[in-house]
Amino acid sequence: MTDSNGKGRVLLALTGWEPEVWINEFGKAAPNRPVALEPEGEADPGIHYAVVWKQRPGLLSKLPNLKAIFSLGAGVDHVFADTSLPDVPIVRVVSPDLTTRMSEYVVWQVLDHHRLGPRYRAQQADRIWEEDQNQKAASDITVGIMGLGELGRDAASKLRIMGFSVSGWSRTQKQVEGVSCHAGEDGLGAFLASADIFVVLLPLTPETREILNRDLFTRMSKRGPLGAPVLINAGRGGLQNEADILAALDEGLLSAVTLDVFQQEPLDPESPFWTHPKVTITPHAAAASMPHSLIEPMARQMDAYERGEPLINLVDRKAGY
Amino acid sequence: MTDSNGKGRVLLALTGWEPEVWINEFGKAAPNRPVALEPEGEADPGIHYAVVWKQRPGLLSKLPNLKAIFSLGAGVDHVFADTSLPDVPIVRVVSPDLTTRMSEYVVWQVLDHHRLGPRYRAQQADRIWEEDQNQKAASDITVGIMGLGELGRDAASKLRIMGFSVSGWSRTQKQVEGVSCHAGEDGLGAFLASADIFVVLLPLTPETREILNRDLFTRMSKRGPLGAPVLINAGRGGLQNEADILAALDEGLLSAVTLDVFQQEPLDPESPFWTHPKVTITPHAAAASMPHSLIEPMARQMDAYERGEPLINLVDRKAGY
Repeated sequence: MTDSNGKGRVLLALTGWEPEVWINEFGKAAPNRPVALEPEGEADPGIHYAVVWKQRPGLLSKLPNLKAIFSLGAGVDHVFADTSLPDVPIVRVVSPDLTTRMSEYVVWQVLDHHRLGPRYRAQQADRIWEEDQNQKAASDITVGIMGLGELGRDAASKLRIMGFSVSGWSRTQKQVEGVSCHAGEDGLGAFLASADIFVVLLPLTPETREILNRDLFTRMSKRGPLGAPVLINAGRGGLQNEADILAALDEGLLSAVTLDVFQQEPLDPESPFWTHPKVTITPHAAAASMPHSLIEPMARQMDAYERGEPLINLVDRKAGY
Repeated sequence: MTDSNGKGRVLLALTGWEPEVWINEFGKAAPNRPVALEPEGEADPGIHYAVVWKQRPGLLSKLPNLKAIFSLGAGVDHVFADTSLPDVPIVRVVSPDLTTRMSEYVVWQVLDHHRLGPRYRAQQADRIWEEDQNQKAASDITVGIMGLGELGRDAASKLRIMGFSVSGWSRTQKQVEGVSCHAGEDGLGAFLASADIFVVLLPLTPETREILNRDLFTRMSKRGPLGAPVLINAGRGGLQNEADILAALDEGLLSAVTLDVFQQEPLDPESPFWTHPKVTITPHAAAASMPHSLIEPMARQMDAYERGEPLINLVDRKAGY
């Protein structure tokens, strides 16, 4: 069931991404491991591994000897969108490159709000030279991180080094050095009362879908650098109720938002988010990793698995991430 | 020569700043130490300390018992603008609050260029959802810091933690962990060839005046995140030749600049910098410290001095900073 060189074949199952760059990276990282695309790889008994981004539903269940699924995204909601997913291990991508890029994005956007970037850019457009006399110190600001996985923990550490106080919230209780950690529905209220700037790095699961809604915003009680909390979503668009975000901005429940993700991407040119003065948009650019940095660890895991070692960075199917 | 409580009096000599907030902070930090303003404090033999921001030239030389001058700015060029400055020690402000704020500003602006902030904001204005496919990793970018004092060293450390390579240049050779250090005129060429993004935190002295000029820009050889080097000046406006900066942007010697300081502040509403598409302006807001965080260590130094301890963080009069 393996190729003549003993290496299980890989099916690259992508929707919306061109396959060439990924095939090239596999050729460099694992030159002896064959990689197939659809339709050739469909139902092929030689396929042991699927490397997926929004795979076509039903595709994987037809592979009789599939050993593991590797997600090309840090989030795996795109994998679970396939309701006929076979019961094999799912490996999430954990890449220092991806983690570093996400923390860059988080620190960048937290600083942009903390240091009044939108205000100073508006002043520049109006040729106004006026320093804000009430610039707070980072130590006066608490950044609340929703989601304390690899990405959330690294962002927390870098925000602390920049001088911010940091609190965190996750489904299950975590311990993160220097971070005030809250967990579950019981801990949500205290978490929401703890922070001025909220950074969302949650996985998208049935429990977290549209968790960023009016009810949540009304439970945020600190005032942020601009008089109301700031929201930064670098997770998934499905986490946010977009009508509620717009209403919260207009009602003053939120002072500003940065959104890297939307329910529908690309964002509709007619969307009111584009021109809202309190909205910063980036085009799902928070942590686009280099193909090399994603494929290399996958190739190493496949080799290790074939030497009898266990797979690592596995997704918890029940939790959905 | 001291007041009845044994504490030397302070003359607060400010130009362009309202004195109330500083007097209040002295009242809190050193309630028993008398503070005078002009004209009452002029030529007063009870004045032992001057706390200055752009003091009126000639004012300090008339104080017969002046022991030390305390600068309210991290740079001391404003002190030396007085050519009749008496020969007493000059103490620079070293405040963790000020250092933290400057590093925030540096990391913020480096990330804004590295992560293509100007491009994504322009795209948002045009309702364009398009991720840059060539986003570099921080490790591919070298940030070159001009000036390796307290501020430059702290910024270097935080940039390294964010993943950037860091090089540095200073008048005299320094050793900074993880930073490739160059010094003096001999080291300037190698430094200028080393970095993609330049951060200027130099003191303004006769040697550094208008050091940011066409000759310097032509010696920068790396290409930066946008095809040419980026310049960020958070030091002093006097460091920059402003006509040369505009020409370098238009000729492509520089791809973008962030300027917190100008030769003339506030910046003239007619200045071409305001509307230049490659220019980010902040209104001398990089590291405005809280009055408390500046006055408190000055009050502690005055007390220590009167107990016989030496003054610290002294300015080198010959070097001019």
